[in-house]
Amino acid sequence: MARKTKSISGVDLTQIIKPRSVAVIGASEKEEKVGHVIMQNYLDVGFQGPIYPINIKAQEKIMGIQAYKSILDVKKPVDLAVIAVPAEAVPHVLEQCGKAKVKGAVIVSGGFEEVGRKDLQDAIKTISKKYRLPFIGPNCLGIMDPRSRNDTLFLPTSKIDRPKIGGVSFVSQSGSVGSSTLDLISGEGFGLAHFISYGNAAVVDEVDILNYLADDPETRVIVFYLEGVQRGKEFIEVVKKVTGKKPIVILKGGETPSGVSAAHSHTAALAGSYEAYKAVFRQFGLTVAEELEELLYYAKVFETQPLSTGNRIAIITNGGGHGVIATDALYRNGLMLPNLSRETEKSLRKAMPKIVNIAMPMDLGGEADAKRYQAALEILENDPNVDGFMVITLFQTPGADESLASAIAKFATGRKKPVVAVSTGSTYTRSHVSIMEASGIPVYESPTAAAKSLSALIEYSRYKEESAK
Amino acid sequence: MARKTKSISGVDLTQIIKPRSVAVIGASEKEEKVGHVIMQNYLDVGFQGPIYPINIKAQEKIMGIQAYKSILDVKKPVDLAVIAVPAEAVPHVLEQCGKAKVKGAVIVSGGFEEVGRKDLQDAIKTISKKYRLPFIGPNCLGIMDPRSRNDTLFLPTSKIDRPKIGGVSFVSQSGSVGSSTLDLISGEGFGLAHFISYGNAAVVDEVDILNYLADDPETRVIVFYLEGVQRGKEFIEVVKKVTGKKPIVILKGGETPSGVSAAHSHTAALAGSYEAYKAVFRQFGLTVAEELEELLYYAKVFETQPLSTGNRIAIITNGGGHGVIATDALYRNGLMLPNLSRETEKSLRKAMPKIVNIAMPMDLGGEADAKRYQAALEILENDPNVDGFMVITLFQTPGADESLASAIAKFATGRKKPVVAVSTGSTYTRSHVSIMEASGIPVYESPTAAAKSLSALIEYSRYKEESAK
Repeated sequence: MARKTKSISGVDLTQIIKPRSVAVIGASEKEEKVGHVIMQNYLDVGFQGPIYPINIKAQEKIMGIQAYKSILDVKKPVDLAVIAVPAEAVPHVLEQCGKAKVKGAVIVSGGFEEVGRKDLQDAIKTISKKYRLPFIGPNCLGIMDPRSRNDTLFLPTSKIDRPKIGGVSFVSQSGSVGSSTLDLISGEGFGLAHFISYGNAAVVDEVDILNYLADDPETRVIVFYLEGVQRGKEFIEVVKKVTGKKPIVILKGGETPSGVSAAHSHTAALAGSYEAYKAVFRQFGLTVAEELEELLYYAKVFETQPLSTGNRIAIITNGGGHGVIATDALYRNGLMLPNLSRETEKSLRKAMPKIVNIAMPMDLGGEADAKRYQAALEILENDPNVDGFMVITLFQTPGADESLASAIAKFATGRKKPVVAVSTGSTYTRSHVSIMEASGIPVYESPTAAAKSLSALIEYSRYKEESAK
Repeated sequence: MARKTKSISGVDLTQIIKPRSVAVIGASEKEEKVGHVIMQNYLDVGFQGPIYPINIKAQEKIMGIQAYKSILDVKKPVDLAVIAVPAEAVPHVLEQCGKAKVKGAVIVSGGFEEVGRKDLQDAIKTISKKYRLPFIGPNCLGIMDPRSRNDTLFLPTSKIDRPKIGGVSFVSQSGSVGSSTLDLISGEGFGLAHFISYGNAAVVDEVDILNYLADDPETRVIVFYLEGVQRGKEFIEVVKKVTGKKPIVILKGGETPSGVSAAHSHTAALAGSYEAYKAVFRQFGLTVAEELEELLYYAKVFETQPLSTGNRIAIITNGGGHGVIATDALYRNGLMLPNLSRETEKSLRKAMPKIVNIAMPMDLGGEADAKRYQAALEILENDPNVDGFMVITLFQTPGADESLASAIAKFATGRKKPVVAVSTGSTYTRSHVSIMEASGIPVYESPTAAAKSLSALIEYSRYKEESAK
């Protein structure tokens, strides 16, 4: 892993993530300009503090707001400067930000080390050090903080749905992985704490970001797309600190020799051996995602479910085939079915109709309704041999309707044992999945996704328990 | 693997899959009855031939149609009897079907070998043999044939979307896996030839079904969910016959010891060792899906793309991170990036703006539009070192719009090299994915899904080429 001298130690990201005032340098009336889209987003999401559009060619106003030719003309305190001017012009405007005592910057412009312009990147690092002005980027999307409505993304709201407020912080070295995953998150049942796309990491890097999120009360889970680490030792230290408190789900891009080389030209990161990374990651309690999809799978189980170290998962289903596939998925992922206690079996036999085979996985039958599910779950809940639940509800079946979705949602709420649900289907199913997800139960389209997620939760729970000893 | 004596050899499923007339035995005015839902579905989908509702308590009409107390009262030729009466009554009505010279039956009723009633199952097998009356089931959903509008599913159309007409035949031992996957297929860009859920396989089994589909011109791809095989030797023989002509994608449930036992109580199939199955499957050209999701991934690449034995896949993208992840996914799945020819590199350098790095994966930049994609694809298409394409279009980016979706769709149409697309996102993205899928290009949400699918296509292409020698 490459090392670099850190220009600023103990960077505080508060002014960058939750600024009280923002200057957009490169603001423009021209719709196709990045600076225009950023201004538009600030207006659309309703940023509460003052916004100062800056453009060297500025006339009186830009997009209806008093504009300035230079940040030095503002003469009011500016927490965050969002810089969207051509790379060549960045050192000059950053220098001006320093002089104007701006607290932090997001440099969205590309055209630095990722295209061979190490000179330009060095120049802005030097300026950052000189003025103690930390910045995120360059070559990044920057920040979205739904609580303070800080939003530096130069992607129009019409093209990317904005997630609701929640406890998942999503950090991405890559802008494209960041923005498309953010768009997907908006369709999920969980919400966002902060989104941070940090690009070339010339100054603020993964270590600084994790340091901030470690103590951030809004962040309950961290989801991370990473291509390379610049300060290996410090990274491990901060990871240990964070995973002792909250989970980090990580996807590492640049695994194969060609992937590594692609990652290098992409964000100028030196990607190390994937296997070496993975071994280290697991050792320090990181939850490793192997695919993009898994970032969301794991985020939602961590965001909503209690930790649990037990791996005996009760499966109940209204479709036999799904029970079979779910059982396979459990065992493949280091989980197992519980041996039900005699008392549980007795109670179930009494509560269930004769056609229900009292065994794990338990197939309640295609006609099973809310009542039957409820009865089964309440009995299983009291079995000390059951550590968690995979509840499969196929809404194509005759017995499954809104009351079933509500019953599952109610059962899962505030439970001490983790519960995940599986519903596979289209229109009718999705509307019922929404009911369940609104109450905070993670719903997956396949038993495999659900089993992987429970497995990730249990693995992290065990790490945390071990490391607390 | 268990063996059974086959009661009927050379079963012809034509009358069951594409009947000219249908009797619904157990038809009912009562909405909660399976026989009611089946009748309703026939009326909703608009089955063209005569429908005869049969119910022992029938008055003049059921659901507005002339009803009969027994199939023997119909006195007109009936191709297919759909039987939805309690298990105990099935032998009697099946015997009557035999006497009435019905050509085939679908027994949807459960309550046979899967709940320990081998006696009942044996009874209906004997009747089937006696009258040479083949049936599908018992304990199944039966048939959906969108072309002839034959639809024995007892799942209301409000709960399950019906797929459009196409070339994928989906066969499932399990009704729940069948119906929920069918529901998912309806949201995909590809269409259905036949759906066959065959449950306990008392008479018509996987061998008979594959035999029918082998020569069925409507079926271009077979997707199969299987828990166990009853006639191992014949199964392998028919698989060899089919895979020499068209691909079979198979998901085998009941992998682990507990999964096996779950599968047994589910459809009374004796599930063998998964690893043993898998080795045999691959040897005979079956495409093995490890997860439910992969059934759809592979179905859509086989349904739409030409076969290809070359594994050098050109990646173009408008997001660097996706290029990195896609490259990792290629190599993990036995594929690789091409070494572009000098001529290609020269042409690309001329056609692309300076910021585009002429290398694989090729990041066209976040501002890349339809024109830039088109130019790159047309040059790459002519490179003999390129065997196929993964085209990543992230619609969150400024340059991506409807014209990009149309350009990709146009490029992919009728191409001799396989093309798969990747678009990750929500509302805006999905509407553009629809444009691409309508033209027959398979679009995946993640690079991993796309790479797995290309890999499956190439593996099967190689098998077919080898086996034709």
